[in-house]
Amino acid sequence: MGPGPISAYPSVLRAMSAPLVGQYDPFMTATMTETQELYRAVWATVNDATVLVDGTSRAGIEAAIVSLVRPGDRVLVPVFGRFGHLLAEIAERAMAEVHTIETEWGQVFTPSAIEDAITRVRPTLLALVQGDTSTTMNQPLDEIGAICARHGVLFYTDATASLGGNAFEADAWGVDAATAGLQKCLGGPSGSAPITLSPRAVEIIQSRKRIEAGIREPGDPDAADFVRSNYFDLGMILDYWGPRRLNHHTEATSMLYGARECARVLLLEGRDAVIARHERAGAAMLAGVEALGLVVFGDVAHKMNNVVAVEIPEGVPGDAARTAMLEDFGIEIGTSFGPLHGRVWRIGTMGYNAREDAVLTTLAALEAVLRRFGAAVPAGAGVDAAADVYRSA
Amino acid sequence: MGPGPISAYPSVLRAMSAPLVGQYDPFMTATMTETQELYRAVWATVNDATVLVDGTSRAGIEAAIVSLVRPGDRVLVPVFGRFGHLLAEIAERAMAEVHTIETEWGQVFTPSAIEDAITRVRPTLLALVQGDTSTTMNQPLDEIGAICARHGVLFYTDATASLGGNAFEADAWGVDAATAGLQKCLGGPSGSAPITLSPRAVEIIQSRKRIEAGIREPGDPDAADFVRSNYFDLGMILDYWGPRRLNHHTEATSMLYGARECARVLLLEGRDAVIARHERAGAAMLAGVEALGLVVFGDVAHKMNNVVAVEIPEGVPGDAARTAMLEDFGIEIGTSFGPLHGRVWRIGTMGYNAREDAVLTTLAALEAVLRRFGAAVPAGAGVDAAADVYRSA
Repeated sequence: MGPGPISAYPSVLRAMSAPLVGQYDPFMTATMTETQELYRAVWATVNDATVLVDGTSRAGIEAAIVSLVRPGDRVLVPVFGRFGHLLAEIAERAMAEVHTIETEWGQVFTPSAIEDAITRVRPTLLALVQGDTSTTMNQPLDEIGAICARHGVLFYTDATASLGGNAFEADAWGVDAATAGLQKCLGGPSGSAPITLSPRAVEIIQSRKRIEAGIREPGDPDAADFVRSNYFDLGMILDYWGPRRLNHHTEATSMLYGARECARVLLLEGRDAVIARHERAGAAMLAGVEALGLVVFGDVAHKMNNVVAVEIPEGVPGDAARTAMLEDFGIEIGTSFGPLHGRVWRIGTMGYNAREDAVLTTLAALEAVLRRFGAAVPAGAGVDAAADVYRSA
Repeated sequence: MGPGPISAYPSVLRAMSAPLVGQYDPFMTATMTETQELYRAVWATVNDATVLVDGTSRAGIEAAIVSLVRPGDRVLVPVFGRFGHLLAEIAERAMAEVHTIETEWGQVFTPSAIEDAITRVRPTLLALVQGDTSTTMNQPLDEIGAICARHGVLFYTDATASLGGNAFEADAWGVDAATAGLQKCLGGPSGSAPITLSPRAVEIIQSRKRIEAGIREPGDPDAADFVRSNYFDLGMILDYWGPRRLNHHTEATSMLYGARECARVLLLEGRDAVIARHERAGAAMLAGVEALGLVVFGDVAHKMNNVVAVEIPEGVPGDAARTAMLEDFGIEIGTSFGPLHGRVWRIGTMGYNAREDAVLTTLAALEAVLRRFGAAVPAGAGVDAAADVYRSA
């Protein structure tokens, strides 16, 4: 019940152990194509360029940024938590000229604050996290694509922490590039990064295309302006997933199976139903921790459905209490980064864990642990408040 | 029975579906530490810096090169097949000054040819593939470390295709950095890249260390000369695997389980016994294809144990025959790249597939397919010759 990685759906774990097939086996290529189609539905997009990057969610971020940003390009990163810093960091390593705006941890940006910064900085790319688990905030994105389009700016968002548990509409919101991971609301293991790219993003990527030596043929593109990474060159990754099936990396077959199953179970339950389940689990956990007398961190109106941060009560040793949760109850809750380190715990309700029994068990355990460490907690109040949310739904 | 990826060991597939745990769960960190120790034995090294890179084998290559090579550094790549071109390509993208020497496909380099090139180029890094599946050649490495040490050159080798099926001695051979993947002789799925680094390599990596914004603390290193990738910055990856456990990516838990099991089953059978099994399977397949009248490509004395390339007989349609092998017998054999495309098939005997039944079944199927496409093949000769190798052993 931490902020992710979390327990996977049982069927995803089973999918991970399916037999491997060769790289160009018709079952393999059909599975890749099917996975693309499933993720189009997950992202709510018709983007042809919807694939997986073979690596963790961070690999997806780096692939998007190094492929879309040329050295010297201006990138604007609004930072509202640790993962905004990460986007800026990755863009800096890609030799971009990085500009950041910051807001207090626990808050999000207004569209006008972002537009003002775009007007001032004139970036080629806006890189904006949707859900930042470090603060639990969910940055509204629905007006950002239109702002970017007005200013001729590419709009990239990382939805690792939010996708599947909160609304995401790639096409309706005008997103040019979006990345995620499996280990949060999608309920799978870390190690595969879904990505989707608009035609405008693909055009930039294609303009920088260089097919690697060893398989390059006469007439193949070889841009001087090539992407400064081979592994993360989305031009080659798209050629591998596309009809040309041009060899690049060797697709991570087991991770592909897992990624496909994450999308399959999500769509089988229904995209809206899964988000509603996360919303209910999040509301129940929120009601529960408040009923236990815990102070919730940040702007609750903009909290992600799938994680809540609570201040560690005065006098309770934060790490010892987390250890007791894990050792005595087998339940993990999260610590925090940066300014919140030692100040808050983060409790997740995502993917397979966005379930009533998981929420109630966690609250019962938390009550016992808080009491053991001397906090005054009303008996049964957390479980009751959360159960009420489920009963009233 | 292709040149990889190949069928995984059954226990590796089972390991892939084990339940996930949190990133800092004591079981998770203990599993990471145990996996490091297992891979030290696989690599034959005492290198503390022995970890996994979360991505395919190509991710391991890029991590080694971008972390060891500064923009403008001279890199020497002896090219004897497609994967030499890949090392050169990745070094070019890392803005190195890349020098190559080439030998005919199907041959390897003498140590003196490599030393001559080092004397002429004066590189900071020698990047040399051990086994190049594109040609099936196994470059001898035992004298290369001493040559590099004499000239003050770092010695990096990619052993993706060879590790586990052919001798590899990281420490005895003076290797500074070596990378691999699971999908060849290690018998696992693509998606995790074992890597080992000598203290000399670690020193260079540490000198370029920059801890990322968002978790950087006062006094933490922030080299101007930072690695131009966040995901592949081995300095941060080592901090994540090391005692500091500094958060970087979220370790791909299922791939970690798979990588651990690959090493565990190899060491349980015994490193030398596994190599001997590959040697025998390779010898049996070689005898079998020769007895079928097929012409073997390249310098057989330097062939890897785990793959053989045979010329497609005159008049036999190469792709249609491969399709018949797959559709009628469920057996994959490989096509080829570059100058060998359309000229040879590549047949693997590696990992779980380095078994007598797999070798004999493949030869029986190949005989039937060759005959169907009009080739004159001596009845039963392939199976008999291979079985003789097993019986004589």
